[in-house]
Amino acid sequence: MNDFFKLISPSDFVALFTDFAPLESEMVAVGTARGRILAEELVSSEALPPFSRSTMDGYAVRAADTFGCSESETALLTVIGEIAMGASGQALSLRPGQAARIWTGGELPQKADAVVMVEYTQPFDEETVAIFRPVAPGENVIRSGEDYAPGTAILDRGSCLRPQDLGVLSGLGITSVPVYCRPRVAILSTGDELVPADQTPPPGKIRDINSTTLAALVEETGGIALVHGICGDDFDRMLAVCTEALNDADVLLLSGGSSVGQRDFTQRVFAAMPGNQMLVHGVSVRPGKPTILARQGNKALFGLPGHVASALVVFHCFVRPLLRQYSGLGATLGLRTVKAITAQQIPSVIGREDYVRVRLTPQDNGAPPLATPVYGKSGLLNPLVRADGLLPIGRDVEGLDKGVMSPVLLFP
Amino acid sequence: MNDFFKLISPSDFVALFTDFAPLESEMVAVGTARGRILAEELVSSEALPPFSRSTMDGYAVRAADTFGCSESETALLTVIGEIAMGASGQALSLRPGQAARIWTGGELPQKADAVVMVEYTQPFDEETVAIFRPVAPGENVIRSGEDYAPGTAILDRGSCLRPQDLGVLSGLGITSVPVYCRPRVAILSTGDELVPADQTPPPGKIRDINSTTLAALVEETGGIALVHGICGDDFDRMLAVCTEALNDADVLLLSGGSSVGQRDFTQRVFAAMPGNQMLVHGVSVRPGKPTILARQGNKALFGLPGHVASALVVFHCFVRPLLRQYSGLGATLGLRTVKAITAQQIPSVIGREDYVRVRLTPQDNGAPPLATPVYGKSGLLNPLVRADGLLPIGRDVEGLDKGVMSPVLLFP
Repeated sequence: MNDFFKLISPSDFVALFTDFAPLESEMVAVGTARGRILAEELVSSEALPPFSRSTMDGYAVRAADTFGCSESETALLTVIGEIAMGASGQALSLRPGQAARIWTGGELPQKADAVVMVEYTQPFDEETVAIFRPVAPGENVIRSGEDYAPGTAILDRGSCLRPQDLGVLSGLGITSVPVYCRPRVAILSTGDELVPADQTPPPGKIRDINSTTLAALVEETGGIALVHGICGDDFDRMLAVCTEALNDADVLLLSGGSSVGQRDFTQRVFAAMPGNQMLVHGVSVRPGKPTILARQGNKALFGLPGHVASALVVFHCFVRPLLRQYSGLGATLGLRTVKAITAQQIPSVIGREDYVRVRLTPQDNGAPPLATPVYGKSGLLNPLVRADGLLPIGRDVEGLDKGVMSPVLLFP
Repeated sequence: MNDFFKLISPSDFVALFTDFAPLESEMVAVGTARGRILAEELVSSEALPPFSRSTMDGYAVRAADTFGCSESETALLTVIGEIAMGASGQALSLRPGQAARIWTGGELPQKADAVVMVEYTQPFDEETVAIFRPVAPGENVIRSGEDYAPGTAILDRGSCLRPQDLGVLSGLGITSVPVYCRPRVAILSTGDELVPADQTPPPGKIRDINSTTLAALVEETGGIALVHGICGDDFDRMLAVCTEALNDADVLLLSGGSSVGQRDFTQRVFAAMPGNQMLVHGVSVRPGKPTILARQGNKALFGLPGHVASALVVFHCFVRPLLRQYSGLGATLGLRTVKAITAQQIPSVIGREDYVRVRLTPQDNGAPPLATPVYGKSGLLNPLVRADGLLPIGRDVEGLDKGVMSPVLLFP
């Protein structure tokens, strides 16, 4: 029952993750790739658009034929046909003095280099159109390959795929993409006092809250949650369950064991697994001090605090950066930050990085929101439900005065 | 081919959505409810925690027995037993002068009202413990119902369910929740020039980009995308396809028809559908002016511009608020906003609300990021891929100077 751990700093903790390699890549269909992370740079193998297209309804022309025309002195061009949508414009070829009717998106005929908007034309007779505003070469035209020429980089490795990115891929005929595999995260709750959430706990027992919360956090971070349920405090059984769970996962989250005895227990289980290397036995953060990290090859094992409020902070600060590292995003928090004004004095302790749950209240006149701490014992969920994010207070700071501008990490 | 539409303002457009009712609700399992919107207020029907729990490893005591003790004058208490994790603490009852060994999360014995941390105790003999720091009643204890008492509101209607919210529900034994149904959005691309993204386009044709992009936008907004593919420019067929698609959906997104002729075509199809009411024939926004909105009961039909860059802006500004209205979040954009500094002068046109694609560049010393416009013809995708968000310029503003602070709507 020794409480004197060698604590690691939060930044040193996160720095450990740069030694973990991103996961392998897999090919997924573009239709299911939103939010996935590209594992390779993508290069266009063809031209987009594949041909020179009109951006207007009007007449495809040789621009030189319109030079100098005006409302008083129109250019008269012979209309040699219409380019129906979806038909090949290149089937027509303009000689000097000729034009072709064209629609937005239509393919330009041969020798055409510009389009006159229909608003600046008037039919002259059945075969002739009068143009009364000149166009420059290239006007109202998107050239073949102007968007993406063959060989152009489309998206960098590590890009998070957005709707517009997927649209480009569709336009270029790319129907599947190499993305980093989603990290598989095994979740295990420990404690003889736990029953599954769908059961009525007998006296002395409570429902498992952490499995649900951690699974949702994992999915929110892009991982695949593998919920293994509850394991009692039996060493041999725990060792077997952890070994089996990690077999099929990249990460094991073992939560529970906020007490010193249970923490030791988790540590002994992790240490007993062949190939495991113990990396962290506690971190100078509040809440979350009793966090444990072990490594097995490129896999990671976390011992998380049993109180869900603490486990959530540890997840955002430490598990999240590792999942992002596995996903090809780098070992970063990836949480949005807003600047807020402290609504009251917030005390803190020297030597710990404090993550204070805060609720944000918008202010009028465009001022930054007010951050009000939502205090409560770490075993309570209620403050966490009322909070919008976490306000970090550095380890060398005794607290923040009221009215101080400070960044707040928003819950995703 | 009449280009003189009566344009509606963007704010009047969005205001139309308050007449649409949120969708019905459905029960979903808590394990799949992350990101869903609560359709009813949830009230606790039991106490959390269900019993008074220790928050520390130590000894459960009657606080009064410790009053006045100190390192020099310890309180000696008789240890009548240990409360094993998961066992009922209430099986024991403390008489004055008695204590019970307890662990973090354990249930307090009867008559105990506080816990002394093990650090402030020392075994005296086999049956006796010496306490050398007094505790107040309630210290190191979470009372039964302290987190949620029976009858307490847990979460409001309209709450977007986060991991910690789901954790609370698990703790209270709530395994399924009433949430608003996800809006079903039928997506249809029109144009004789289109081929599916997995085909090689023959001369004059291009691949369908909008279906992929819009489907991803819909899913990103929490909707269910129903991709119906490509429909050529045939009135009767279009009418039949639109009718069938809307049958099974809450919203129809018909994209294509950037040209005046095609816009008229979409409008005629929408107007020909029985029960349809035409609401919008163009909006004073750039890009996106030729947007069409019709209504059929509580369902909506959008005619979106054919250029994906315009369609994306219209989606974020108008489709997104309607999907949020259906989902119970209200007709709001729901896009995060950051303040940025314009990196150069950005011209705009009076009479249109301009949504300028911008790329954000972080600045040192904590200054707001620089917003650089990413220009390009609206038929190009490349500028959209390079952009981080949209910078709105009001309809009565001629443009922004360089170095001006302005809010930027971030792509989700």
